[in-house]
Amino acid sequence: MAALDQLIDALRKLPGVGPKSAQRMAYHLLQHDRLGAQQLAAGLTEALARIQTCTRCHSFAEAPVCAVCSDGTRDPALLAVVETPADQAVLERSGSYRGYYFVLGGRVSPIEGRGPKDIGAEALLHRATDGLVREVILATSFTAEGEATAYLLGEALKAQGLKVSRLARGVPVGSELEFVDLGTLAHALADRR
Amino acid sequence: MAALDQLIDALRKLPGVGPKSAQRMAYHLLQHDRLGAQQLAAGLTEALARIQTCTRCHSFAEAPVCAVCSDGTRDPALLAVVETPADQAVLERSGSYRGYYFVLGGRVSPIEGRGPKDIGAEALLHRATDGLVREVILATSFTAEGEATAYLLGEALKAQGLKVSRLARGVPVGSELEFVDLGTLAHALADRR
Repeated sequence: MAALDQLIDALRKLPGVGPKSAQRMAYHLLQHDRLGAQQLAAGLTEALARIQTCTRCHSFAEAPVCAVCSDGTRDPALLAVVETPADQAVLERSGSYRGYYFVLGGRVSPIEGRGPKDIGAEALLHRATDGLVREVILATSFTAEGEATAYLLGEALKAQGLKVSRLARGVPVGSELEFVDLGTLAHALADRR
Repeated sequence: MAALDQLIDALRKLPGVGPKSAQRMAYHLLQHDRLGAQQLAAGLTEALARIQTCTRCHSFAEAPVCAVCSDGTRDPALLAVVETPADQAVLERSGSYRGYYFVLGGRVSPIEGRGPKDIGAEALLHRATDGLVREVILATSFTAEGEATAYLLGEALKAQGLKVSRLARGVPVGSELEFVDLGTLAHALADRR
């Protein structure tokens, strides 16, 4: 059935959804939750129409400039650099950061041929040298690619006379020492306070 | 962001998708696959508009009567009863059945207060007594509820003078005996041939 197969194909665009799950989802929606399917179609269309990229921080925004960048009560001396809007959302939910953000277009990856240019390094340098930013917090992932990204951007930012920092590495809150990996433990020891 | 939150809520309508996955999916679609999001919205809308229930077998259909029921080359003496359109699709893909189908509205469940009436037993009796059907194959699941469904429907169908059968229970093809559960083994022994 053409319409059913097309729906199953489209559901496979979702991350983590293979052919079996896509089929289960399609059957479920059509048989048991047509209202849910309608809401999902509407939610997608609405989000695509309304959510754009903030011209200032490159995160998601429903206006040319996002709500965070438009918030005049934040500290203009602090700029946190993250890989994705999702990372920004996590930092924001932590409730312990009151500066502004800059969202990269991912992280550098020699394997996938993605260099600093491809993730928006120039736009970051432009944003960070507005005369107000004093410290750039490189909040990229603690993976090889995230570290490489932080290193490359950090060098460029330091060359502009900016203070550059990185999130602290250490033992996650609530975790038992026994189950913490050795690399993390080594960092937590070295950075003890 | 209202549009983002609504999209995340809508994605949670998908079976097996919790809050974390829904968020990941929303961010992924908006950041990396806007075309995929568009295709998914279109696929949903299209499927909802085009896929209805076949008036004859109650499976999915893009016309009042589905392609299988309209296929005059099948054996009208055989009617397979399944719980869902997905079950019908699996039987059909096996390539070893050439009769017609009847799709129930699920299976009886005393706990959820679903009796034979709620799954379309009357429509099945009506369909099975068209004068052409000779044998009804009860292809409901081999779970407690599926077995109960098969038992109740089987009694009603036998009362109409119809031959009633059930799919064979046994060791799945390709499986090692060591890992087959004991109930299945017991059935495979009893039904040996």
